[in-house]
Amino acid sequence: MTALAKDAARKRVAHADDAGDSMYQLIRQLYPICRSITGDGVRETLRLVQDHIALQINEVPTGTAVFDWTVPKEWNIRDACIKDSEGHKVVDFKQSNLHVLNYSTPVRKRMSLAELREHLYSLPGHPEWIPYKTSYYQERWGFCLSHKQLSALKDGWYDVLIDASLEEGHLTYGEYYVPGKIPDEVLVSCHVCHPSLCNDNLSGIALSVFLAKELKTRRLRYSYRFIFIPGTIGAITWLALNESAAGRIRHGLVVANVGDSGIMHYKKSRRGTAEIDRAVAHVLEHSGKPYEITDFSPYGYDERQFCSPGFDLAVGSLTRTPWGRYPEYHTSADDLSLVQPQYLADSLSTYLSVVSVLEENKYYVNQNPKCEPQLGRRGLYRTMGGNVESKEAELAMLWVLNLSDARYSLLDIAERSKLPFAAVSAAAQALERSGLLEPKM
Amino acid sequence: MTALAKDAARKRVAHADDAGDSMYQLIRQLYPICRSITGDGVRETLRLVQDHIALQINEVPTGTAVFDWTVPKEWNIRDACIKDSEGHKVVDFKQSNLHVLNYSTPVRKRMSLAELREHLYSLPGHPEWIPYKTSYYQERWGFCLSHKQLSALKDGWYDVLIDASLEEGHLTYGEYYVPGKIPDEVLVSCHVCHPSLCNDNLSGIALSVFLAKELKTRRLRYSYRFIFIPGTIGAITWLALNESAAGRIRHGLVVANVGDSGIMHYKKSRRGTAEIDRAVAHVLEHSGKPYEITDFSPYGYDERQFCSPGFDLAVGSLTRTPWGRYPEYHTSADDLSLVQPQYLADSLSTYLSVVSVLEENKYYVNQNPKCEPQLGRRGLYRTMGGNVESKEAELAMLWVLNLSDARYSLLDIAERSKLPFAAVSAAAQALERSGLLEPKM
Amino acid sequence: MTALAKDAARKRVAHADDAGDSMYQLIRQLYPICRSITGDGVRETLRLVQDHIALQINEVPTGTAVFDWTVPKEWNIRDACIKDSEGHKVVDFKQSNLHVLNYSTPVRKRMSLAELREHLYSLPGHPEWIPYKTSYYQERWGFCLSHKQLSALKDGWYDVLIDASLEEGHLTYGEYYVPGKIPDEVLVSCHVCHPSLCNDNLSGIALSVFLAKELKTRRLRYSYRFIFIPGTIGAITWLALNESAAGRIRHGLVVANVGDSGIMHYKKSRRGTAEIDRAVAHVLEHSGKPYEITDFSPYGYDERQFCSPGFDLAVGSLTRTPWGRYPEYHTSADDLSLVQPQYLADSLSTYLSVVSVLEENKYYVNQNPKCEPQLGRRGLYRTMGGNVESKEAELAMLWVLNLSDARYSLLDIAERSKLPFAAVSAAAQALERSGLLEPKM
Repeated sequence: MTALAKDAARKRVAHADDAGDSMYQLIRQLYPICRSITGDGVRETLRLVQDHIALQINEVPTGTAVFDWTVPKEWNIRDACIKDSEGHKVVDFKQSNLHVLNYSTPVRKRMSLAELREHLYSLPGHPEWIPYKTSYYQERWGFCLSHKQLSALKDGWYDVLIDASLEEGHLTYGEYYVPGKIPDEVLVSCHVCHPSLCNDNLSGIALSVFLAKELKTRRLRYSYRFIFIPGTIGAITWLALNESAAGRIRHGLVVANVGDSGIMHYKKSRRGTAEIDRAVAHVLEHSGKPYEITDFSPYGYDERQFCSPGFDLAVGSLTRTPWGRYPEYHTSADDLSLVQPQYLADSLSTYLSVVSVLEENKYYVNQNPKCEPQLGRRGLYRTMGGNVESKEAELAMLWVLNLSDARYSLLDIAERSKLPFAAVSAAAQALERSGLLEPKM
Repeated sequence: MTALAKDAARKRVAHADDAGDSMYQLIRQLYPICRSITGDGVRETLRLVQDHIALQINEVPTGTAVFDWTVPKEWNIRDACIKDSEGHKVVDFKQSNLHVLNYSTPVRKRMSLAELREHLYSLPGHPEWIPYKTSYYQERWGFCLSHKQLSALKDGWYDVLIDASLEEGHLTYGEYYVPGKIPDEVLVSCHVCHPSLCNDNLSGIALSVFLAKELKTRRLRYSYRFIFIPGTIGAITWLALNESAAGRIRHGLVVANVGDSGIMHYKKSRRGTAEIDRAVAHVLEHSGKPYEITDFSPYGYDERQFCSPGFDLAVGSLTRTPWGRYPEYHTSADDLSLVQPQYLADSLSTYLSVVSVLEENKYYVNQNPKCEPQLGRRGLYRTMGGNVESKEAELAMLWVLNLSDARYSLLDIAERSKLPFAAVSAAAQALERSGLLEPKM
Repeated sequence: MTALAKDAARKRVAHADDAGDSMYQLIRQLYPICRSITGDGVRETLRLVQDHIALQINEVPTGTAVFDWTVPKEWNIRDACIKDSEGHKVVDFKQSNLHVLNYSTPVRKRMSLAELREHLYSLPGHPEWIPYKTSYYQERWGFCLSHKQLSALKDGWYDVLIDASLEEGHLTYGEYYVPGKIPDEVLVSCHVCHPSLCNDNLSGIALSVFLAKELKTRRLRYSYRFIFIPGTIGAITWLALNESAAGRIRHGLVVANVGDSGIMHYKKSRRGTAEIDRAVAHVLEHSGKPYEITDFSPYGYDERQFCSPGFDLAVGSLTRTPWGRYPEYHTSADDLSLVQPQYLADSLSTYLSVVSVLEENKYYVNQNPKCEPQLGRRGLYRTMGGNVESKEAELAMLWVLNLSDARYSLLDIAERSKLPFAAVSAAAQALERSGLLEPKM
């Protein structure tokens, strides 16, 4: 790596470290809120994000047709509990908002344990944890509780209360746009519909916010669009309302699960060899840390919608441990101890490296394509030959000169030379300054 | 696998098991006949096949020009033996028709052991076995015998008799056509020229017969053409007489060695990535049993002719142990004990699975390509989210929807998703019923 | 391998063995000469080469513009030494011409050890060896010496003499052309600028000379151009003066380091899949010896210039141990003991095998493409079938017939069939003689 590239890398790390703590603080602030795919929980979350970035908040009315779907009713909840016959609260929403089956219809009823049991969900394998469950598209009510709580319930009568409303209202989402030199966009999408769960997906919200803050300070080639949306219905709604604008998206990432201690994981876009897929692969390969890359599958987060065949956008998902592959996933154990500032910082740093590749990945044309130019007389090359002293910077210049015939991008050159992109990009900049290289028109 | 797919698979197995015994009985019936590339042995064989399917029998006169070749004389044999000077038959055609070098010219002569020896073939490495040898295109006579028999021959004079005729006549072959919805054909070819050898190739004849019987009962998309031909000259004759019709062949398999206990083996077509190559590979990969796939080579059975550069048909060869790779190959040990009903049944079942892939492998177009359709309200999807409960059927539907942009066939989707073809096909059918998918026009 | 192919291979080996000694004698003769990128050392070297082949010698004046470069001054050296204060020569050019930094400016001066040290180069890791160092494009003077010599120098005053001239003159290079049937050329390039170093690159000069001598005796399809040039500036000069002629180059090899005991190594052309890349890979794969193939990189010998993007010629580099990967590289230990006749012979034999592939690699068209032709009646095939007796020659004929549809070259067929090229080529010749194959027009 050149001194320039090293310095840039060091600065990225420092930025990220500061941001690690800030991201964690934001997660802590958002943690208690009961979010769902609609309702005040999302609104409150987006308002808190506005303390950091000038988020535009959009409200889409219940009943709006969005492709094959309809914006559902708005759900809000005030309280919920189960009381035993002696009036003791054995399950209490105020203790954890996971206790209520998310999107439950309201209920206020006395019933036997046998009747109640059909509405109770627990995890026998993790008897201390409360599962997170939802029922968006079929009206149901229910409670989630630890298996220990469930086992302690005695036969008898219970008073059940879910003081919730499911009514005409709105679906709420946030959008933030960082303009760059060209209108072509990089999409960063995170879901904001999960209640008190930290890795999935307060970590994704926090990373998106601090990535946006950082990019706002930079001179950018691409324009960046951040969307904070409820999962599935939010992505569908956004795509339906922005159908033609989606054509501007050149690259995109779905952010989630970026705060745990696992290694980085990238799930490729449906295209599989899009520039975003290759940029992320390059960054992970040169990170010096273990990582994992998997092929696209039509299951997971909102890449499902962005990569549906009618859009087929170049959108992958860059996470730490993927959904469903850590035991705490979708349980009360996905709490403030599962995510840590250092992992958030490392994830942000990885995202920033990917941004650097996208920003700097251009095609150049060698202005002196017949034989090598004499780098020595331009001060770009050592002047004494003899023993082996190949330096990465000189090698990077030779590679850039050799392959810059307008068919190879800098990322192509980094891949073929096995050099880090930063070294290749720095070499291209040095050669451009010396007039030996011109950007491809 | 879906319940539907499982049921279909179970039925295929049951069919095949019944057929295993039936195929073995047919082999037993055909075993004693002395076949060659022409003559009454082939005629008798095809007549017995007619007890099962309405085979059309064709007779092509000696001397007919077929590409670079000429239909040879017809060979028929009545008797053959070698008697020692005391009149004892030391080699007797009636004991085994392998004893005569197949296509031997007639001979009736007394000669010394020394002179006789030049006409005797044995296998020192397997002293109990009689080798199978032929001399079709150079006129010769000879006897094959076990090495034990050969070693027991004493010096002296021998009376040699081959009561055979090699005369103007016909080359005989059989053809059976099962019409489907479209005129595009699947070719199934087996050779019928080997005398008392079970795996090579009475097993191939039997499998072809019972595959044809089964397909006759089905509503098919493709039309199926079964040909029962003498090796090499039969394939050349058939292609010469059906040159333009060969253009209708979309897929094809050469059947041989399908009754032994070895694992399934597929030799690809010359094209190497034809649909038949991929269909067979998929079936073998998902069979749960060991198998082997090898590249095309221009040596082997009649795929040599079907894959000659002037035809280059998508014809591979699906066998159990390939020719030449089991010690009993082309010897008297390729007898009724080498083939077993269970292996015949397993081979037939594999062929039927390949047929299913070919029949059902179509291109579909997602009618709701922008974002996922709402499967839940169509009863195609579980209604409650939360913990991980991915089911193969749902996953298959998501894959089919995601990739059905008219560029991916169901087999492409099965390959990319790593799901069994049956699951993908069942998903496509469910989606088509719900109106979400249309076949590509 | 067929008898014909074996015989040809045997003859190639015999030729090469004789040539091994001859190449070694030439190296021994050239070893004492002090070469550089210009000057009388190159002239004397080329004159000695003229004893073997009718080399054309070209002189290009200092100051000639060659692409981004300028032909430099001519350097000649008569003597050089360092004397201690007692008048003893502690470093003496007459002992080894490596002692002078190649291209040193003249100097005659008394100086202290401290001042002198800044002009001294040694190898602490190999205290007995003198390093080879150059300073072509920045005017400097200096001495190279063993670390043992350096360590023995005592404080005090030294008389330093480099009796050299750096003046207007010429760059000298040699060229030798062997005409073939077609004007398309194979380029063989070696560098002639290194002083007393045997493997790098007297071995390359010697191999080029004896390869040229051998080819001169043959009837060739391609024309062959051998160039003996100073590294970098020589290649640039040659390309600048022969810019349009470079378009005739179809294949090329840069020869260097071909006399050491290491395994053969091929560095691919920038194109990576050019015919020369595949021809060399095939020869090495079928050599029965270990070898190594690496991808192109824009660092090394003059393939850097031939593969610059404005030319992008199909030129690779075929060596034994590559530059920089043996400890003796660019030191006095690259002497007459490092190279051996047997390795030179083996390298030459490899080059000749590559030439055979290039010469014989053609496209043919099967004249009987529908089904196999009857090889038996043309005496090309055994007449009796039965047991397994596949022979390489017959198999090669079947492969050539099967793939000769004008889309596969003989090298393609050798690669796909995994047969040695010589067997495939011999089969094609036999089939062409019998009229079954015609060269593609």
